[in-house]
Amino acid sequence: MTYRTLRLASTDEGVLSVVMDAPPMNLIGPELVRDLVKLVGELETDQGVRVVVLESADPEYFVPHVDLTKVADYTTEAARAGGPGDASLGMLWYRLSKLPVVTIAKIRGRARGAGSELALACDMRFASRQNAVLGQIEVGTGAPPGAGGMQHLARLLGRGRAMEAILGADDFDADTAERYGWINRALPDAELDAFVSRLAGRIASFPVEGVRTAKRVLNELTLPAADAVRADAIRFRDLVAADAAQARVKALFAQGLQTRGPLELNLGERLGDL
Amino acid sequence: MTYRTLRLASTDEGVLSVVMDAPPMNLIGPELVRDLVKLVGELETDQGVRVVVLESADPEYFVPHVDLTKVADYTTEAARAGGPGDASLGMLWYRLSKLPVVTIAKIRGRARGAGSELALACDMRFASRQNAVLGQIEVGTGAPPGAGGMQHLARLLGRGRAMEAILGADDFDADTAERYGWINRALPDAELDAFVSRLAGRIASFPVEGVRTAKRVLNELTLPAADAVRADAIRFRDLVAADAAQARVKALFAQGLQTRGPLELNLGERLGDL
Amino acid sequence: MTYRTLRLASTDEGVLSVVMDAPPMNLIGPELVRDLVKLVGELETDQGVRVVVLESADPEYFVPHVDLTKVADYTTEAARAGGPGDASLGMLWYRLSKLPVVTIAKIRGRARGAGSELALACDMRFASRQNAVLGQIEVGTGAPPGAGGMQHLARLLGRGRAMEAILGADDFDADTAERYGWINRALPDAELDAFVSRLAGRIASFPVEGVRTAKRVLNELTLPAADAVRADAIRFRDLVAADAAQARVKALFAQGLQTRGPLELNLGERLGDL
Repeated sequence: MTYRTLRLASTDEGVLSVVMDAPPMNLIGPELVRDLVKLVGELETDQGVRVVVLESADPEYFVPHVDLTKVADYTTEAARAGGPGDASLGMLWYRLSKLPVVTIAKIRGRARGAGSELALACDMRFASRQNAVLGQIEVGTGAPPGAGGMQHLARLLGRGRAMEAILGADDFDADTAERYGWINRALPDAELDAFVSRLAGRIASFPVEGVRTAKRVLNELTLPAADAVRADAIRFRDLVAADAAQARVKALFAQGLQTRGPLELNLGERLGDL
Repeated sequence: MTYRTLRLASTDEGVLSVVMDAPPMNLIGPELVRDLVKLVGELETDQGVRVVVLESADPEYFVPHVDLTKVADYTTEAARAGGPGDASLGMLWYRLSKLPVVTIAKIRGRARGAGSELALACDMRFASRQNAVLGQIEVGTGAPPGAGGMQHLARLLGRGRAMEAILGADDFDADTAERYGWINRALPDAELDAFVSRLAGRIASFPVEGVRTAKRVLNELTLPAADAVRADAIRFRDLVAADAAQARVKALFAQGLQTRGPLELNLGERLGDL
Repeated sequence: MTYRTLRLASTDEGVLSVVMDAPPMNLIGPELVRDLVKLVGELETDQGVRVVVLESADPEYFVPHVDLTKVADYTTEAARAGGPGDASLGMLWYRLSKLPVVTIAKIRGRARGAGSELALACDMRFASRQNAVLGQIEVGTGAPPGAGGMQHLARLLGRGRAMEAILGADDFDADTAERYGWINRALPDAELDAFVSRLAGRIASFPVEGVRTAKRVLNELTLPAADAVRADAIRFRDLVAADAAQARVKALFAQGLQTRGPLELNLGERLGDL
């Protein structure tokens, strides 16, 4: 076992289950990024895996957001994923989107900020109606989303709803996220695993060349250019470091940011009360 | 108070309420256009306003459509908004879309024709489930929509539904408009004000640079090129002046167009019976 | 009557009803393609028809998919629709999309594969809530969709749902297809005919120049480039002829493909069990 924060299990049929398990709450820090860089690198050449199902071991958090105390550290790790100038989560998530294997995010709990963007980087998203929460919350701290959220939400939600999601920086329950196109479907929690398992198994059973060709062409039609991803990452990096954002982040830490508790549980709402 | 048809009220938090009040029914005529030109001009440089909420004083009409007896007059007014060749509502609405401040349309009553396009030019749209009506009705008179409706609906609704909305020229209730993506959400009338007020207040409370950067980038991803807006305006201008459209407009005036009453209330349906 | 597989009936108002009737189950074979080539050719120059409503005489099948025993034959027929290099269903469907007349698909029963793509090539799609089934099933046999489905679904459904529909290759009931934007609306079966008839009649009654101009501009905004359609057709042609797909098609024929019965009725599900 060479991953510290990911638990992997594969079936004979070519479905790889990837469970993120980075206590205390699956923040995106250097360890999780290092493991995701490694995973993406292996999947770029792996010939056996057909479909990846990405989920969280933590029922309350898919991924809450990045670890704001370790931005330099996880960025250093992310840099290992790309060439010069690609030292950003955005480019790592982008590489994930371009994998030849099919990726499905299975979402329980909160997927906010770069966690929402990780889900958006996957090919499909299915979420628990009872407990999934999506939030593209960066503007509530002072910076535009920097890891693909701008690009994906503009395309999936359209101008009006992308403005609401990104400028409003609020939490969206699974049913609303489905209506907006943020996720493919909200499913009853009790049905979510079986639905995703069946879909993953189907795709894994189809001739691989057809699946990969179709994904590649759909990617060409729907993914942004790499330069747009880079530009978003730079805007995020610059504005999150500015005084306005730093003051808000400091205030959030004073209220319990990055610890389990009411602030993180209700972060969307709390950003409006800051 | 320097506006004749707009009532403005701002909060300390940077939310500006703009209530359109152009009796008898908020038709888009020279006075309303003059005021909107002035408002857009001021908002382009205002540093205090963060979010604009646009609504109507008339419970039956957000904006019914342009005043067809005063096309030359309101076009003259609209021309003041732009440079040469930009004498069109379409370019004025486009300038509205590009404002650095965030704009939210709160819709009660009918928003048809250029009124629908005014709402579409705003960044977001929330409507009363009980009484909002959206209609891109121009083709029912003989011309394609000329103030942004083609561009926005093609992007928001997709090919099939944009064809239905624009070629069918019918009325859409708020729930259907929500399903189609024409508006962000249909809300119970009793909840609409509080929902919009909360959202506007949130956005106004966030660091301004992040909000404006995010809006600007989303605009780049979702707005049409200015030339496409101009081309639509020219097509509308030419076809609405052609015999086929003029005959229909004349017939509509004979049935009560531009006066309060059953024709205007049910204009979508009535266009199909002409 | 010069059509063998199409029944045509037109109203005085310019609505042409086209009923596909190619027993035993409306497979797309050389006869149906020959008739559709002829129909498209006539509609390109016809001055009387304003709106075409396309439906099926078979309550169980709108169009199940192409006749896989006659690919060379129907391709030869399709070649008559275009110039050199355009010998594909994709380019015929594309020509259908570009017709000056407005086209509405009224869907009962299964519309899978090239049948789904035929519906997608129409300007709008309305389907029976009780019995319509949409399926872009090609990847389940081993090839990406080749007659426009990639292009249309990427635009209408967005990245996540287009991936699910195309890579999952499963059946979608009408309500799910509506939620995803694959069809305009799912309607109660008893209301479907009246709804479509009213809409078609409305559009046919509007001044023709406005309708055609609006459709042309919407097409420019939403249709793919011809080269993208051609590239999809070539990818389909190559992969459907490869060993992996041929083996699956052979297995499907052994289970009852192209005969009325449980395999065709439940083809989406059965592709996952192959």
